Order: sequence, then structure tokens, then C-alpha cells
Amino acid sequence: MDFATIVGIICAFALVCSAIMLGGDIGLFLDVPSLMIVLGGTMGATLINYPLPDMLKVFKVVKNAFFHRGVTVQGTIADFVTLAGIARREGILALEPSMAEMKDEFLRKGLQLSVDGLEPSSIRDILGTEIVSIQERHKLGSEIFTTLGTFAPALGMIGTLIGLVQMLKTMDDPSSIGPAMAVALLTTFYGAILANLFCLPVAGKLKTRSNQEVMMKELMTEGIISIAKGDNPRIIEQKLNAYLPLELRESSFK
Amino acid sequence: MDFATIVGIICAFALVCSAIMLGGDIGLFLDVPSLMIVLGGTMGATLINYPLPDMLKVFKVVKNAFFHRGVTVQGTIADFVTLAGIARREGILALEPSMAEMKDEFLRKGLQLSVDGLEPSSIRDILGTEIVSIQERHKLGSEIFTTLGTFAPALGMIGTLIGLVQMLKTMDDPSSIGPAMAVALLTTFYGAILANLFCLPVAGKLKTRSNQEVMMKELMTEGIISIAKGDNPRIIEQKLNAYLPLELRESSFK
Amino acid sequence: MDFATIVGIICAFALVCSAIMLGGDIGLFLDVPSLMIVLGGTMGATLINYPLPDMLKVFKVVKNAFFHRGVTVQGTIADFVTLAGIARREGILALEPSMAEMKDEFLRKGLQLSVDGLEPSSIRDILGTEIVSIQERHKLGSEIFTTLGTFAPALGMIGTLIGLVQMLKTMDDPSSIGPAMAVALLTTFYGAILANLFCLPVAGKLKTRSNQEVMMKELMTEGIISIAKGDNPRIIEQKLNAYLPLELRESSFK
Amino acid sequence: MDFATIVGIICAFALVCSAIMLGGDIGLFLDVPSLMIVLGGTMGATLINYPLPDMLKVFKVVKNAFFHRGVTVQGTIADFVTLAGIARREGILALEPSMAEMKDEFLRKGLQLSVDGLEPSSIRDILGTEIVSIQERHKLGSEIFTTLGTFAPALGMIGTLIGLVQMLKTMDDPSSIGPAMAVALLTTFYGAILANLFCLPVAGKLKTRSNQEVMMKELMTEGIISIAKGDNPRIIEQKLNAYLPLELRESSFK
Amino acid sequence: MDFATIVGIICAFALVCSAIMLGGDIGLFLDVPSLMIVLGGTMGATLINYPLPDMLKVFKVVKNAFFHRGVTVQGTIADFVTLAGIARREGILALEPSMAEMKDEFLRKGLQLSVDGLEPSSIRDILGTEIVSIQERHKLGSEIFTTLGTFAPALGMIGTLIGLVQMLKTMDDPSSIGPAMAVALLTTFYGAILANLFCLPVAGKLKTRSNQEVMMKELMTEGIISIAKGDNPRIIEQKLNAYLPLELRESSFK
Repeated sequence: MDFATIVGIICAFALVCSAIMLGGDIGLFLDVPSLMIVLGGTMGATLINYPLPDMLKVFKVVKNAFFHRGVTVQGTIADFVTLAGIARREGILALEPSMAEMKDEFLRKGLQLSVDGLEPSSIRDILGTEIVSIQERHKLGSEIFTTLGTFAPALGMIGTLIGLVQMLKTMDDPSSIGPAMAVALLTTFYGAILANLFCLPVAGKLKTRSNQEVMMKELMTEGIISIAKGDNPRIIEQKLNAYLPLELRESSFK
Repeated sequence: MDFATIVGIICAFALVCSAIMLGGDIGLFLDVPSLMIVLGGTMGATLINYPLPDMLKVFKVVKNAFFHRGVTVQGTIADFVTLAGIARREGILALEPSMAEMKDEFLRKGLQLSVDGLEPSSIRDILGTEIVSIQERHKLGSEIFTTLGTFAPALGMIGTLIGLVQMLKTMDDPSSIGPAMAVALLTTFYGAILANLFCLPVAGKLKTRSNQEVMMKELMTEGIISIAKGDNPRIIEQKLNAYLPLELRESSFK
Repeated sequence: MDFATIVGIICAFALVCSAIMLGGDIGLFLDVPSLMIVLGGTMGATLINYPLPDMLKVFKVVKNAFFHRGVTVQGTIADFVTLAGIARREGILALEPSMAEMKDEFLRKGLQLSVDGLEPSSIRDILGTEIVSIQERHKLGSEIFTTLGTFAPALGMIGTLIGLVQMLKTMDDPSSIGPAMAVALLTTFYGAILANLFCLPVAGKLKTRSNQEVMMKELMTEGIISIAKGDNPRIIEQKLNAYLPLELRESSFK
Repeated sequence: MDFATIVGIICAFALVCSAIMLGGDIGLFLDVPSLMIVLGGTMGATLINYPLPDMLKVFKVVKNAFFHRGVTVQGTIADFVTLAGIARREGILALEPSMAEMKDEFLRKGLQLSVDGLEPSSIRDILGTEIVSIQERHKLGSEIFTTLGTFAPALGMIGTLIGLVQMLKTMDDPSSIGPAMAVALLTTFYGAILANLFCLPVAGKLKTRSNQEVMMKELMTEGIISIAKGDNPRIIEQKLNAYLPLELRESSFK
Repeated sequence: MDFATIVGIICAFALVCSAIMLGGDIGLFLDVPSLMIVLGGTMGATLINYPLPDMLKVFKVVKNAFFHRGVTVQGTIADFVTLAGIARREGILALEPSMAEMKDEFLRKGLQLSVDGLEPSSIRDILGTEIVSIQERHKLGSEIFTTLGTFAPALGMIGTLIGLVQMLKTMDDPSSIGPAMAVALLTTFYGAILANLFCLPVAGKLKTRSNQEVMMKELMTEGIISIAKGDNPRIIEQKLNAYLPLELRESSFK
């Protein structure tokens, strides 16, 4: 799991809890029916919004996004330079032995299509469709968390309205107004916490990860097409380096 | 009707009701004039917003979207591989007998155009127009629910303003302030429930379903064009598999 | 004027008025200075926002959009099939006599360009520019109503702030607080009604109508280009039917 | 300065002032520190947001947009028909004498490029870049006013929070609560007025003017390209008329 | 650091502080636990939202954007005219000596590709990828500040809810209500200040700077391609001048 997420979650929740404890008992902030309305209602609204299989797939997408392999862009560029060298010297069929060891399915499929002799434009079409459908699936994960983060404050407000109506209808004892209102506000508090310290930041992280992965796949497509066209390894390196900031570029040709 | 929707609706409403009942009588939350303002006003605003025939079409779109046939992507890809095999061995005219049994109108129309000998680019144009106009019709359904979900809280606020003005103008008896305000808040409550536990999630579901259907139609277009061009069944399978996540891909060639 | 708009306006306003009357005197909700701030201020802000000629054009656009001729898509498709038949049998010049009777200027101009012998790609360019500028003009109408609907609640809030400041500064008699606050809230109420029961739904209707008209013009462009290219009437019918949902398609070839 | 803007500003401010005066002394609504927070803070935030030269350029853009030359579309189309006639009869070089009198720099540059013998596609590229960079500069003006209109209510709220905190901390004399709160609300009032009766409508007007100018430049590009290609004046008129609504079209060929 | 930012920050904060001091002691507005919730919570939520390396990169992006070299567009255009002159007279290889002195990496890389003899379309592809990935990296900086500016008011509201709940639960002494509420409002105040006087304007500045840099890179791409194609220096100047407003254009050919 990536470090920033752990630090972020601990930091955010620790601060909120310690701020609460500075001001009094943390038990004041626990109310089971309020939690039920916010958590259950938000889940319910999201279940109406998305098909069940999509909801279940989310856990996998989230796991993939958080436990994220450390493939570096520089390493991938260096691999392409090596592959392009082999393909130029020994012909594209000579890539088949090294393909067996590749971990990335996308890369393997793309090179297989080149070895099979498809035209570069067909390879680009197939890999492009693949990237679009990866993007769609990732977008779904991020969208579901955004939806949770939109319904959570709404359910929080609904809970507060319920509490306010009950309090106002039965306003006999003035001394009970304060505590009743405090409880009514708790659902708004839960909704705001759930949305702003969990759902929305996670949705943001999934989006960032997806953009990184799509960028990587586009770089790979560019590299595969260049190999299929028989480009010079130096040119391929220059093409692929364009995806990196200047200070991170490395060259195999010194 | 799909399972997630039922679970979601039951879960959301059951939780809200039980939360209300934990705090007191559910009868406090029923007020017919308030319901009239929110439901009637929202319907009225939406009727000004959309032509009547569009409003009536919505029920059909909704029904189609919820009771949704279980055509799997994998099955469709396998069908295309079979069709491509027939077309390659026996010529494209040999597809006509199998077309009679197809349930999907879009697929049948597309294959008919290929059998009629239209050029692939014309087929792509016609099927593309068809997809765009399917999308337009689906978008309408989702838009109408989004509009309902936008006007509902606004009408809720209008109702609350009416209640507040009436209460404030005739503020003789201080003990009546609480209950009058509770009733005034009920319209806001109805608006929030209607929007967040019904209209907006349904709009979301319609959008998701529409995206899935459009993806399926694009896959079909790709398959039909490939058959019309006389592509190799293996290539067609690889092209169409690009629409699926890796772990769901199946191959007819093992 | 289309039926849904009438029903919608009556339904929405009748409900709001009856809800008001159930709770007391409707006279409480009339306050001329409040109306002046909301109506006048909203008009003023919108006049700063749009050039005067655009504001005046709006009335015409609105009238066109509401009193909307009942040209059906099916009828137009049938007309194109007939025209294509004439053009194929007797040459494209044979269309000139039937053009005189056409009511739609766009259709007449397009066919005139074909008869004049322009190339299909030039016809598509000219008609495309025409569609884009129709869209721009329609968008203006819808945008002006959206702008009115955005400024109305803002002016309502400004009015309420004025009322609150006056009430708070001169808070001598506690019994006058309630009624003064009620009057202050009236501008918010007017702003919400003006925006949600008039401006925003009308903006929505204008957008829907514009989309329908643009779709019709695109269908006509497709038909005109096909006639100019000398396409087979059956193919034209199939191309144009793609704009219609399946259940509304009719065929002249049975 | 265009008429609608004057009418709008007078109408909006006169109504707000008279509404204030109906309810009491207008002096209640003047508070110098509140004005300082809202005006100064909004200017400050906008200065952080935009580079200084851009802020200074705004005054010029605004002046250009408000004092706007009365070039009519019809006149421009008629000019192009005349120019196209000259170019056809006497060759494109014959346009040089009439170019000296043209006031519009864009038109002159475009025709100069045609006379210099550049290919139509290069002319389109250069004029297209020019239009994009005009759009960018105009967008900046509109964006700066939108930014002002976004920060103004935020600063208004900040001012109100300052007032509320000061009032609540030193709540000794109950009779001072009302007036203190009134002053606190004044910043919100100033923010709302500044945003809704000045910044946002002016941003809207700048956007509308920019769209009109861009449309004019696109029409000119179309005309220049057509002249460079040696199109027939009648065809040019039909192409350019597509930018106008039907009822405003005039023809030089009757 | 650019002048407008300093003026803006000083102006905004000085005004807010002096407005506070006019109304009383500035010490009332300092509360350490409130600051902790808003600053810490906002940082925490943003750390969940973005990967750690991206957060660290931000400081560099910000520094680059604020301390921004004064390369003028006019100077760059004049340089291109000179380079194009050399390339035309002495061949493109004659550019190599002057390339060594160029400070801009992008320009140097582009010219190197031309000198290496790549085709103009490949150069455009490589430089285009480079521009897109520069844009992505800049967008990240601006997005992180926008995210900070979105979470800050949300955390402010969460802090206020905590304060309100604690105050309402333990409402024994009426005289303590005011000050307790004042403290509760402080987090909202901090959130609003942090978002509107720091995060959002800085995000806006980063966006503006990025647009300027991208425009410069596009101008350079246009110039490099034109040199690679062997265009006439006069034509190159006209092409590149299209990026400048009329009054700033200078010509090397008088």
C-alpha cells in the first residue's frame, strides 16, 4: 500500500480525534442510529446507482490501485531500446523468446501482434481499444467513490433534518433542545467526514493512478508501433523520452 | 429487475424509516400539503422542461434499462468468431440463414448491410449514426431523472420558505413555533429524499446501463466491419477481446 | 403552444398557490418592493450580460420553440425516399418543380445547391456551417434563460440581506422581528420561484427543442448529400432510419 | 458604450437603492471597513491569481468590448462579394489597392497572404492560429471577471465570519447583538452585489462579444480562402450567408 | 517571484488583519486546535488523494512557476527568423553551432531532430508528445492546489460541527454559548482564508503560467517545423506573429 495514503489517513483521523478529545469526551460523537443512516443510506443510494457486479469489481480495482507495482518509466524505455536493437539486428521474430518473461500482459499482447505480422495501423487500433476499455474500467472505480462522496453529505443532511423535525415537534423541555440538536448534527458530521476524509480523496487517488497507467500504456503502444515499423533504437528512445520530464531522462547511448 | 436496485432501495428506505422510528412516531413525518408541493411542483417544472412525448417515453426507457437481458460480452464475441468462420469458408451470403434467429436488431441490420454488399465505410457510417441516436435517446432518460433530482430539493426549499413566512407572520403563540417550523422543514426533507434516494441514483443507473449498451454496440460494429472486410477469425477475436478485461477473456482457439 | 408546458406551468403554480392558501392568506406573500428587487435586479443583471439585440431576439426564439410545427421525422424520411426516386429516374434537375412547395428553407437551400451541381463535400460544408450557426442562435435563447435563472436566486438573497440588515439595526420591538423577517424571506422565495418554476425549465425546453431541430437538420443534410451522390432510395431510407428508434421506423418498400 | 449595459447597470442599482430607501436610511448600508475587506481582499486574491500584465491588459479588453464598432455581418458579406468579383475579373493582384482602405487588420493580413500567393491551406493555418490566440486573449478578460465574481462572495463570507466571531466573543450587552450582526452581514451583502450586479454580468458580456468577434473572423477566413481559391462570387455569398439567420440574409444578386 | 503575487498576498492579508484589528483584539482569532484540524486535515486528505512523489514534486513546479524567466515572445520570434535565415543560406546543418548556446531544452531538442534529418511529421509527433506531458505535469501542480482549496473549507466545516456538537451537549452556562460558538466558527474562518486567499489563487496562477508556457512551446514547434521544411523567413515571421496581439508584433523586415 502506498505510503502517502497511510500517512494521509492516519494524519487526518488522528488530528480530528485529538481535536475532539481536546474539547471533551469522544463518546459524545458516537451515535449508532446516526451512523446507520449515513453509512447505510449512502451504500443504498450507490447500490441503486451502479449494477451489483460493478460494485463488487471495485474492491479489486481499489486493491490494484493501492498496491501498485513499482515499474519505472525509465526501465520500460530501456527495455524498449534493447528490444528494438534485437529486432533490428535479428529480425522481429527474434523477440519471441524474450516475450515469455514479460510480466505486463499488454506489452506481451502488443509484441505478439507485431511478431504475427499485423500492420502498424491495425496494432494501434487494437491497442487503442484496449487502452480505452482499461480507462473505462478504472473510471468506474473512481466514479463509484465520487458517487459515495456525493451521497454521504446528502444523507448526512437527511439525518439532520429527521433529528430537527423530531426535536421541534416535541419541544417541551427547553433543556433538552441542545443535546437533541447535537445528535441531529452528528449525521451531517459523519457525512462530511466520510466524504472528505475517505471517499473523495480515494476517488482522486484512483484517478491519478489510472492516468499514470494510461500514460504508461500509451508509451508502450508508441514503442511497440516503432518496433513494428523497424525504427532506429535511438529514435525510439527519443520518442519515448518525450513522456518523461527532462531531469529524469536517461540514455542508453552515451 | 436487477438485484442491486432492489437491495439498494430497500436498504436505503428501511434504514431511513427505522432511524425515524427509533426517534419517535413516523406519523410526524407525513404531511400531505408538503408532499403535494414537492411532488407536484417537481413534476410540473419537469413537464415545462421536457416535451410530453419525451416524458412518456421515459417509462419505457426505464423499464428496458432495469429489466435488462443477460447478453454476455463473451458470448457475443464467440458468436462473431463463428460467423466470421462461416463467412470465410462459404462466403458472406452464407450468413443469411443464421441471421433469422438473431434477437438483436442492431446486429441483424448490420449483418444485412454486409450481405447486401455495402462498403465497410458506409456500414460504419450507418451503424455509427444508429449508435449516436441510441445514445441520444438513452441520455434523455438519464437527463429527465437528473432534472427531477435537481428540481426536487429546489421545490423542497420553496415549500420550507412558504412555511417559514407563514410561521413568522403569525408568531403569536411561542409554543407553536417549534411544530410549525418542523412542518416547514418537512418539504426540504421530502425534496432531499426524492432527489438522493430515488431520482439521482436512478439517473446514474440509466447512464451506466447506456454506457454498457453503447460499448456492446461498438463491439458489434467492430465485428460486423471485420466480417465485411473478410478478416481472419483469430484477428477478429483479438480485436473484440480488447473490449474485455484480461481475466474475462476466453478464446475459441486453444 | 405545446401541451406539456401548459400542464406544467398550471400544475406547478396551482400547487404552490393552493399549498399557500391551505396555510393562510395568500396576501402575506405579496410585497411589491421585494418583487421589484428580484424582477428588476434580475433583468438588470441580464441586460448587462447580453447585448440588447440578443435580448430582443429571445422573444422570437421562445415563440418559435413553443409553437413548434408538427413535422414528423417519418414524414421527412418518406419525402426523401420520393425525391431520391425522382432524382434517380429523371435526373437531379427534375427536383426543381417540387422544391417550390417546400416549407423548410434549409431543405430548399440544400436541394438548390445539389441542383446547381455543387460537389457533395461543398454542400456538406455549407449546410454544416448553417447548422452550427442555427445551434449558436438557439443556444443563446437557452443561455439567456439560464442566466436569468442564475441571477434570480442571487438577487433574492441580496433582497433578504437588505431586509435582515434593516431589521437587525432597528431591533427595538421584539414583536416586529417575526413579520420583518418574513418580509425579508419573501425575496428569496420570489427568486426561487422565478428560477425553478419558470426560467430554468424554459431554458431546458429550449435546449431540448434545439437538439430536436438540429437532429432534423442533420438528417436532412444526410438525405440531401445522398441524393446529390445519386444513392439508391432503399439505401437512403436505411441511412435516415438510423436516426429513429426501431419501433418508429416505417418503410416505403414493403 | 453599448446601450443595454447602461440600462442594465442603472436599472439594477436604482432598484436596489430604492428598495433600501423604502425600508429606511441608506446610511445603514455603508461601512468602510467592510468595503475594504470585500473590495481589497477580492482584488488581492485576483492579483495572486493572475500575472500583473494580464490584469492591466484587462482594462483595454473591457474598453474594446464595450465600445464596440458597428461592423455588420451583412456589410462584410457584401464586401467579400465585391472583392471576389474583382479577383475573378482582374486577378487576385487587383485586390491590393482596395486593401489599403480596410480598417480590419485581420482581413488585411488574410488578403495580403492570398495576394502573396500562399496556398489556401497555409492561409487557413495562419488565420486559424490568429483566431485561437484572439480567443485566448478575450477569454482572459472574461476569466478575470469570473474570478473576481467568485472571490467576492467568498471574501464577503470571510468578513461576516470575522464580524460574528467578534460579536460572539464579547456578548455582554444583548441590545448590541442586533446591530453588530447587521454590520457582520454587510460584507456578505457587498460580496453578493459586487459579484452578481457587476463582475459576473460583465464576464458574460465579454464572452458574448468574444463569440461574436470570433464568428466574424471565421466568416472572414472562409471568405478569404474562397477568394484565394477563385470561387464564384455567388457561391461565396451562399457560403457566408450560412452564418446569418434567414431573415437577415441579403443578396447582391437579384 | 513575480510582483503581482507579492502585492496580492500582502494586500489581501493586510486588509483582513486590519479589518480584524479595527473590530478588536487579533488574539481572538488564534486557536491552535482549530488550526490543527484545518491545516492537518486538509494536508491529510490531499495526501490520500495524491501519491507522495507527486506532492513533493509540487514544490518544484511552484517555484518554477513563480520565479519565471523573462523570455519574451518577440525575442523568440526574432531568433527563429535569424535561424531560418541561416538554415536557408547555409543549410540546416549550419544551425548546430548556435544550438549549443540555447538555454531552452525543448528548442534545442527540436532543432537537433531537424538537424538529424527526421521528417517534419515525426518531429511534430515527438514535440507534441513532449508538450502534452509538460501540460500533464503542470496540470498536476494546479490540481493539487485546487484539491487543497476544496478540502480546506470542508475541513473548516467539520471543525465547526465538532465545536457545535460539544457546545450543544454541555449547554449548562448560557454565558459560555457565545464564546464557544465563536471558537467553533474559527475553523470555518481558517478554511475560507486558506482556500480563497492562498490555495485557489495559487492554483489559478499555476494554470495561467502553464498556458503561457504551452503557448510558447507551440510557437516553438511551429517555428522548428517551418525551419525543417525550409520555409522562407518572412513566412515564418508571419506564422509566428499570429500568436501575438497586433500591437506587440515586431518585424525584422522593414
